Amino acid sequence: MPLSNPSHTTSVIDRRESSARSYCRWFPHTLTRATGSLVYDETGREYLDFLAGAGALNYGHNHPALRESLLEYVAGDGIVQSLDLTTAAKREFLEEFEDTILRPRSMKHRVQFTGPTGANAVESALKLARKVTGRTNVVAFTRGFHGCSLGALAATSASHFRSSSAASLHGVIRAPFDGYFGPDVDTADMLTAQLRDPSGGLDAPAAFLLETVQGEGGLNTASKSWLRKIAALAHEVGALLIVDDIQAECGRTGTFFSTEDTGVTPDLIVLSKSLSGYGLPMSIVLISPEHDEWLPAEHNGTFRGNGMAMVTATAALRTFWRDDSLTNDVKRRSAVVRERLTAMSNRIPGSVVKGRGMFLGIDVVDPDLASQVRRFSADHGLLIESCGPRDEVVKVLAPLTTTETQLRHGLDIIDQALGQQAHSSAA
Amino acid sequence: MPLSNPSHTTSVIDRRESSARSYCRWFPHTLTRATGSLVYDETGREYLDFLAGAGALNYGHNHPALRESLLEYVAGDGIVQSLDLTTAAKREFLEEFEDTILRPRSMKHRVQFTGPTGANAVESALKLARKVTGRTNVVAFTRGFHGCSLGALAATSASHFRSSSAASLHGVIRAPFDGYFGPDVDTADMLTAQLRDPSGGLDAPAAFLLETVQGEGGLNTASKSWLRKIAALAHEVGALLIVDDIQAECGRTGTFFSTEDTGVTPDLIVLSKSLSGYGLPMSIVLISPEHDEWLPAEHNGTFRGNGMAMVTATAALRTFWRDDSLTNDVKRRSAVVRERLTAMSNRIPGSVVKGRGMFLGIDVVDPDLASQVRRFSADHGLLIESCGPRDEVVKVLAPLTTTETQLRHGLDIIDQALGQQAHSSAA
Amino acid sequence: MPLSNPSHTTSVIDRRESSARSYCRWFPHTLTRATGSLVYDETGREYLDFLAGAGALNYGHNHPALRESLLEYVAGDGIVQSLDLTTAAKREFLEEFEDTILRPRSMKHRVQFTGPTGANAVESALKLARKVTGRTNVVAFTRGFHGCSLGALAATSASHFRSSSAASLHGVIRAPFDGYFGPDVDTADMLTAQLRDPSGGLDAPAAFLLETVQGEGGLNTASKSWLRKIAALAHEVGALLIVDDIQAECGRTGTFFSTEDTGVTPDLIVLSKSLSGYGLPMSIVLISPEHDEWLPAEHNGTFRGNGMAMVTATAALRTFWRDDSLTNDVKRRSAVVRERLTAMSNRIPGSVVKGRGMFLGIDVVDPDLASQVRRFSADHGLLIESCGPRDEVVKVLAPLTTTETQLRHGLDIIDQALGQQAHSSAA
Amino acid sequence: MPLSNPSHTTSVIDRRESSARSYCRWFPHTLTRATGSLVYDETGREYLDFLAGAGALNYGHNHPALRESLLEYVAGDGIVQSLDLTTAAKREFLEEFEDTILRPRSMKHRVQFTGPTGANAVESALKLARKVTGRTNVVAFTRGFHGCSLGALAATSASHFRSSSAASLHGVIRAPFDGYFGPDVDTADMLTAQLRDPSGGLDAPAAFLLETVQGEGGLNTASKSWLRKIAALAHEVGALLIVDDIQAECGRTGTFFSTEDTGVTPDLIVLSKSLSGYGLPMSIVLISPEHDEWLPAEHNGTFRGNGMAMVTATAALRTFWRDDSLTNDVKRRSAVVRERLTAMSNRIPGSVVKGRGMFLGIDVVDPDLASQVRRFSADHGLLIESCGPRDEVVKVLAPLTTTETQLRHGLDIIDQALGQQAHSSAA
Repeated sequence: MPLSNPSHTTSVIDRRESSARSYCRWFPHTLTRATGSLVYDETGREYLDFLAGAGALNYGHNHPALRESLLEYVAGDGIVQSLDLTTAAKREFLEEFEDTILRPRSMKHRVQFTGPTGANAVESALKLARKVTGRTNVVAFTRGFHGCSLGALAATSASHFRSSSAASLHGVIRAPFDGYFGPDVDTADMLTAQLRDPSGGLDAPAAFLLETVQGEGGLNTASKSWLRKIAALAHEVGALLIVDDIQAECGRTGTFFSTEDTGVTPDLIVLSKSLSGYGLPMSIVLISPEHDEWLPAEHNGTFRGNGMAMVTATAALRTFWRDDSLTNDVKRRSAVVRERLTAMSNRIPGSVVKGRGMFLGIDVVDPDLASQVRRFSADHGLLIESCGPRDEVVKVLAPLTTTETQLRHGLDIIDQALGQQAHSSAA
Repeated sequence: MPLSNPSHTTSVIDRRESSARSYCRWFPHTLTRATGSLVYDETGREYLDFLAGAGALNYGHNHPALRESLLEYVAGDGIVQSLDLTTAAKREFLEEFEDTILRPRSMKHRVQFTGPTGANAVESALKLARKVTGRTNVVAFTRGFHGCSLGALAATSASHFRSSSAASLHGVIRAPFDGYFGPDVDTADMLTAQLRDPSGGLDAPAAFLLETVQGEGGLNTASKSWLRKIAALAHEVGALLIVDDIQAECGRTGTFFSTEDTGVTPDLIVLSKSLSGYGLPMSIVLISPEHDEWLPAEHNGTFRGNGMAMVTATAALRTFWRDDSLTNDVKRRSAVVRERLTAMSNRIPGSVVKGRGMFLGIDVVDPDLASQVRRFSADHGLLIESCGPRDEVVKVLAPLTTTETQLRHGLDIIDQALGQQAHSSAA
Repeated sequence: MPLSNPSHTTSVIDRRESSARSYCRWFPHTLTRATGSLVYDETGREYLDFLAGAGALNYGHNHPALRESLLEYVAGDGIVQSLDLTTAAKREFLEEFEDTILRPRSMKHRVQFTGPTGANAVESALKLARKVTGRTNVVAFTRGFHGCSLGALAATSASHFRSSSAASLHGVIRAPFDGYFGPDVDTADMLTAQLRDPSGGLDAPAAFLLETVQGEGGLNTASKSWLRKIAALAHEVGALLIVDDIQAECGRTGTFFSTEDTGVTPDLIVLSKSLSGYGLPMSIVLISPEHDEWLPAEHNGTFRGNGMAMVTATAALRTFWRDDSLTNDVKRRSAVVRERLTAMSNRIPGSVVKGRGMFLGIDVVDPDLASQVRRFSADHGLLIESCGPRDEVVKVLAPLTTTETQLRHGLDIIDQALGQQAHSSAA
Repeated sequence: MPLSNPSHTTSVIDRRESSARSYCRWFPHTLTRATGSLVYDETGREYLDFLAGAGALNYGHNHPALRESLLEYVAGDGIVQSLDLTTAAKREFLEEFEDTILRPRSMKHRVQFTGPTGANAVESALKLARKVTGRTNVVAFTRGFHGCSLGALAATSASHFRSSSAASLHGVIRAPFDGYFGPDVDTADMLTAQLRDPSGGLDAPAAFLLETVQGEGGLNTASKSWLRKIAALAHEVGALLIVDDIQAECGRTGTFFSTEDTGVTPDLIVLSKSLSGYGLPMSIVLISPEHDEWLPAEHNGTFRGNGMAMVTATAALRTFWRDDSLTNDVKRRSAVVRERLTAMSNRIPGSVVKGRGMFLGIDVVDPDLASQVRRFSADHGLLIESCGPRDEVVKVLAPLTTTETQLRHGLDIIDQALGQQAHSSAA
């Protein structure tokens, strides 16, 4: 592909893409192709990708096994768009998902194919919880992120997203996440006390909606005991527990679901980003069967039958989840990342390492420092982003398949970035 | 691909797919591949497709030109998922869209890539209108359909969708669509009078949201004069005009935008279904530049950079919109369909033909009759659905590329279905 | 009582009364005492009162029979404030109300004493309707006025009141009142069609809330046939019919309830303004017994047991409602007023006489003219106000006990005011 | 007045009063007259009144000085109902209020006469705060009570009141009151942290609405330091501080306003219950002048010019607030009550004395015990009620003018009731 004139390139984006665009503002290069943990721009320059499509590329870019399935399906004129008609691709995905994921975990959940965005799946889960309980309010947490459509946005906490909506964001009770007021305040106990109080002023909720690790909110991690208390509280007050596993799913924390080792089985689980395994739009809600009260087509959407995504999703399950090698890899690689981040953290006053599995980051305290790390890294061949309420957490979201060599190389760049900044600050 | 055991097939869908599924309930076959206007089930049986992915397949299934672009992109490890980083695929799409669509129509609109579902694009448009105006309410119309996430659902009229939400659906003023109270009542004049009345009880709206042809609501068609009155009213009261062109877009009514021949240029236009040309999830909002007040990332979404969809969308623009052959085809084919439907309609008391372009249907008055037509057609090799408030309108949504021979064959089946039912009713 | 220094008088109002004050802006005199239809300012000047406390003084100021009851009660240390404890005063009021009003009309309604403002009684009625039906939305009408607290305000139509609320005014479906689109459009039929349409976009309502004559909205009068259609529609869709009779009650239209001669018996009736007969705060909701689903204290309020108001209310029932003399008086006096207003109206292009009973006014088309009439009248010894969406209706709201001589005198002043203005406009 | 037949008495209440009635259910006697702290039923039996109209009778029933003013006003045909026209009665009230209350406290607040119920005044204050800030949400607290109309109800915490509303109660952020999570958790610090966090998920509020002592919520008392933190937080985030002083006002806590000795001057103060001094409906909002942004009549209401209430209110200011004798009385009497309640509390495990001034109560832990105290007291000549989330706090709300002899007599009855119950429980 011949290179476009770069000045013209800049031009059409500036001329025509809405001011809502964001990543392209601090990474001004034009990407053309990618493989595994590496992406390339139009000049042929290579970047290590610790952004991974904001969690949509747990298995890396264009994994060969998935690509082959996809090419075969496209070349064979497989069904691309089927609404919710039955296709061989959907059937195979459901069979594989049942065999590889649900049955081994004794999960009786049913699968709803929603519109293929996380926000749409969250909206569907909230709607179902409200329908099942006949209640309006949903408990959502400080620093939670659940999407930008109105229902999901009401549950999202960041004012950056909320303030754009002149419509009031109703129907949400905001509760403090685990550890929000420091280690000595048990926010699950507080919420329990308030919901039990007939004059606590919180109407009985339809659901509790949470991430076990808050991917946008700064990698705050719920403890097992807190999750169990929240699950018990939901049960006690007749509300559904919805886990938004969109960013923590598919091995990011070490297991397929991020709740697997907590003893908690959510009523509804929302999956999306890495589900297709190839970065293709696909979202599902897992529904505990007693709550599957949908009428036919009650929540619909044109693209809920994305055949190509189902094909790659099936291939991903076959490639990565029929044994525990990925889980073991995550464990090893997590240790590598954590060790290096901890060393960096020790050099920065107030800094802490956050998250779990391959869902890790370093709170560098100063948002400007995080921003400088992001830009330095981009200049030195590493794509990486920050998160947290003030974007003060540098977030290492490498594909789970990143080699240890690649991991160490990327961490070196972060380390240099932090050192560089320390130097320049000192100067 | 070896056939699965059909009984097992049924089984995993029954066992595991949520009760929200719908199309697969009345079309119980398993589809495997498709080309143009034809789809095939796993037994090799061929069906003519007048459903066209509910409007997502205006150019038919797996068009060869698009498929080649797609295969080349996938095989070359093109960027599949890029958030909103700049990719060569996005740049080319924007350039092609600017050159082929926007400039020839003197449109200065900017392009927002939203989450790749129509509902998400509608949510984004509503949010932007509210942000720009600082107002909450949106005027939406009887029998309108705009999606199932909370903000879009508030604007959607059908109780089937609305009643599932225990959350109140706020922020919408419901107004009667063109012709809702019959040809003698000008609903635009009524709405104008009420909005001008300081005691009309309708707070000044942020936007008017409408489809020019109501695809789910029964193919009710807004007249040019009504649209112009609504556009003038929106301007008068300081509201934005949002056209949800999701189903009427990309040539369905004969022109790329359904408003092209009306003299109305909407402030915001929502496109989705057929935009990728290949049935892939992709949605954009066109924003008149003076209203592009988004902050970076204020409305975001993981899958807003769907590289494969951009590649096929670019190919579709090149294939179908660089000249007026598609427009001319639609004109000819529309006449064929309209003529045949009119003949059928004349045989059914109360029946009328509705819609325009290749966006046509026949109101058969009796929902049971429409349902029987759907099932008879499925049994005789034609996929077709119904719409309207009681599903009483048989909807001919053939790909625009359907040959006249195919069209006539499909219409024959509908004709037989109606005759058959007339007979069986008479018996 | 010695007169205060008038300049000081102005001063404390200016210094300390909130800018929300209104009547005192165009009537700058300080009133001291009143009797019947006459009020006096501190200089001893007499004014004929065609404002009548905005409908709270149907029996005039300080009626002797009521005053004697009140003086006796106060002097005897009667219970003034009792929450909802049983008092002899409450018991007597209920007995009198049952004997004189409810039984003769075969009404089984129960009586809820709410907080003693019309808005509070409307809030209570809306809340009960929502509780009984489990639904949220209430149908309210163009140009309706129901009060300024949040729930009542949502039902109130005028933007002057609505726009002060930054909170969104939810839960109301705004429908056009009888005659809103002119005599040829039956708005009850329109509403019926839309509510029967499963895709009409109006969720099933909890209630229809209406005034039979819109006292603030311009004296628009619902016809019997329209009221019957709305009552039937409410029944059909499972909603309660709430008549806000706050301004039309207690003989204002000729009968105690304004619906008496329409064949419609509302599920809930809200009474307030003239109920105490003496201008004292008192409000009740009449509840058809099958809907009296309140739990004890579920809607409460400190001043719901206003003993003094109950005493005067009982005296008013005894004085005015044990025979039909008041009803006959209203009929005669209404004819007098209507005749004179009609004559005035005939001289003003576009002008019409509106209302019924002693609830009459003249739409003088031009709001400035109405305002000049108000000021001219104040200068010439007549207190009168205007209403309507633009304050273009001069509203004759004389006490029902106003003598015919007084009526004619007041109408003469209005006549002069209109003539005067015609002259000054012509000049 | 001849006694009615008691059985008939019961009958009309049962037959005709709505099931919303409550106090009359546990106090089945019919009251006829009252003076000071004593009320009498129709058999002539005397009761000591520690209920005091739920705080509306701080100066006792029918105080002679106030009664004389009232009788003179009524006998002289004073203006009873004046909307917001200027009357001599209003002018005198404002002058007295300015001279006796506002000026000595250096308060520049203006006075809004709202509809004469506390709920209406709260609604007005909330609406003004939203108008002034352009924001929707209001922070209200656990166990707060602010009234039962929709806007006020949203701020009220008890599920008993909230659950009757099928309408969603929007626009309120519920925060824990001072001490809600025990003495070691500073809830003001928690709220501050969350509101400062850009991802705390609480949108910037229009106002903080609170009672300094929660009269219905169980006499929970805000500390000075907590109030100062909340006031500072309101200022910091650009919100108004609204103190609902409806029950704590007029000397109940020892000073006219309950905030006088805290160093906090609220932006808006809501007064109602004891303002008229005679149990008559009257409510005002005090508005810091820079926030008095009301347009004329923007919040209106028929009974906002209750002349009789203004006359007694003026007399009450003159009688009780021109010197500090009442304040001193409250101090002495408070010590008496507190001492006795403390002694009782010491005998009941878990029991505590709550409140301050003459706004005191004893948490007896067991709601049944509180209910038995209420009934025992009624049988032994004492009217008293309970409050708290489970009605577990026996609330001593005697008129401030209750003599020490009367106080001790009433406390004796409570003491006996508690002893009695202890005995019967032990038996």
